[in-house]
Amino acid sequence: GKEARKIAVELDILARNNRFAAENRALFAAKGIFALNFVSSPGSGKTTTLERTLKDLAGRYRCAVIEGDQQTDNDAVRIAATGVPVKQINTGAGCHLDAHMVGHAVEEFDLDALDLLLVENVGNLVCPASFDLGEHHKVVVLSVTEGEDKPLKYPNMFHAADVMLLNKVDLLPYVDFDVEKCKEMARRVSPDIAIFEISSRTGEGMDAWYGWLAGRIAAVKG
Amino acid sequence: GKEARKIAVELDILARNNRFAAENRALFAAKGIFALNFVSSPGSGKTTTLERTLKDLAGRYRCAVIEGDQQTDNDAVRIAATGVPVKQINTGAGCHLDAHMVGHAVEEFDLDALDLLLVENVGNLVCPASFDLGEHHKVVVLSVTEGEDKPLKYPNMFHAADVMLLNKVDLLPYVDFDVEKCKEMARRVSPDIAIFEISSRTGEGMDAWYGWLAGRIAAVKG
Ligand SMILES: Nc1nc2c(ncn2[C@@H]2O[C@H](COP(=O)(O)OP(=O)(O)OP(=O)(O)O)[C@@H](O)[C@H]2O)c(=O)[nH]1
Ligand SMILES: Nc1nc2c(ncn2[C@@H]2O[C@H](COP(=O)(O)OP(=O)(O)OP(=O)(O)O)[C@@H](O)[C@H]2O)c(=O)[nH]1
Ligand SMILES: [Mg+2]
Ligand SMILES: [Mg+2]
Ligand SMILES: [Zn+2]
Ligand SMILES: [Zn+2]
Repeated sequence: GKEARKIAVELDILARNNRFAAENRALFAAKGIFALNFVSSPGSGKTTTLERTLKDLAGRYRCAVIEGDQQTDNDAVRIAATGVPVKQINTGAGCHLDAHMVGHAVEEFDLDALDLLLVENVGNLVCPASFDLGEHHKVVVLSVTEGEDKPLKYPNMFHAADVMLLNKVDLLPYVDFDVEKCKEMARRVSPDIAIFEISSRTGEGMDAWYGWLAGRIAAVKG
Repeated sequence: GKEARKIAVELDILARNNRFAAENRALFAAKGIFALNFVSSPGSGKTTTLERTLKDLAGRYRCAVIEGDQQTDNDAVRIAATGVPVKQINTGAGCHLDAHMVGHAVEEFDLDALDLLLVENVGNLVCPASFDLGEHHKVVVLSVTEGEDKPLKYPNMFHAADVMLLNKVDLLPYVDFDVEKCKEMARRVSPDIAIFEISSRTGEGMDAWYGWLAGRIAAVKG
């Protein structure tokens, strides 16, 4: 029936994506590149976090960014202002980046001169969870304005992520948000998730995140 | 090829959805029910807005709510506390409600004793834009913590919506958000969109929204 045909096509799409993801992963390994896939609700602060991270780590690592959005190159323009090479992908009606898109986007960079590849996905806490881009880790950004129950209500994404950046902690005095409860809920769906409480506006808490990054980049470089 | 097969299945899914949506729409018309589909990013405040609206309008209209979430019945529990009948739909891996799910959920209510049906979709600013549930209008909730460029970056949803509730205006003093710029961007993708600036936390601005609701409910009742 139609339902079976739909499922067959979905499995095909995921299998095809996984083949391209494996190619990306092999390429990143061969070039010694550490790759992260930033996912979140629209507006949680992915781009702001990337901007601050790139400025603070300038000169320490050679970075490049891939920006995914339905429309506009707003985020690519913001990243370009930091001086880091950036490639915008517009997905149109699409709700996520896939590994094939990312494979073509990285062709634009000089991969022999790259330590760190940061991919910002379309803002969507659901669909990008199913699409491996060949990254080392998914990093989920959750802002304290969204409510502490998001990990339980959107569990696939938090399960898929190895890192949670709990952003906008500067707004904690003005919202009802229980940080410990949120961390407990995140660990319920992803027991080993690394959690960093940050404000990408004020810079609070960013050093611990940079410490994690430094350790992982060093491990990839071997 | 595979791409053609994928597109054919997607068109099938949308055509099937549209048939169920037409059935829902005919049922709502026959019963004199005004139906709204609330869409937004995760955590923009859909449930909080529904809670306050239901409390403030209690006794004025006979209401029912359908809650869509990947997991948990957190939102249904919150709505039930207002005394309004509510039905939770869990979509699991799914990223949106569809018209078939909604058709079954409304079977749980006494439709002859209903003026207003409020559907809260899965938090997702992309995929629910394509799925007509048979509602009169999509109401998009955008919170001022998300950045004013969301209408241009996620245009399908804002184009599909007839109403925008700009929520969390109580947080305006603590964020960089240009209200006029946001409204201009929303009108660029949806020229006739009705916009209400609200705080579902403090109640600010809710009366104008209730005025719009009253006018539309009266129109449906004829
Ligand atoms: N108060 C506060 N605001 C922040 C913080 N981080 C980001 N913002 C604001 O949140 C809004 C959205 O930030 P972005 O960085 O554009 O979010 P995003 O996740 O990249 O958004 P999309 O790519 O459109 O999904 C902007 O108005 C930012 O200024 C923070 O730590 N604190
Ligand atoms: N400051 C402030 N916080 C708000 C407002 N409206 C909602 N919130 C908070 O925002 C968070 C998310 O609110 P919800 O109503 O659960 O959001 P939602 O859109 O239903 O979330 P999902 O259903 O999980 O996608 C909660 O912590 C609310 O207390 C508001 O007007 N002002
Ligand atoms: Mg962004
Ligand atoms: Mg909700
Ligand atoms: Zn989707
Ligand atoms: Zn059925």
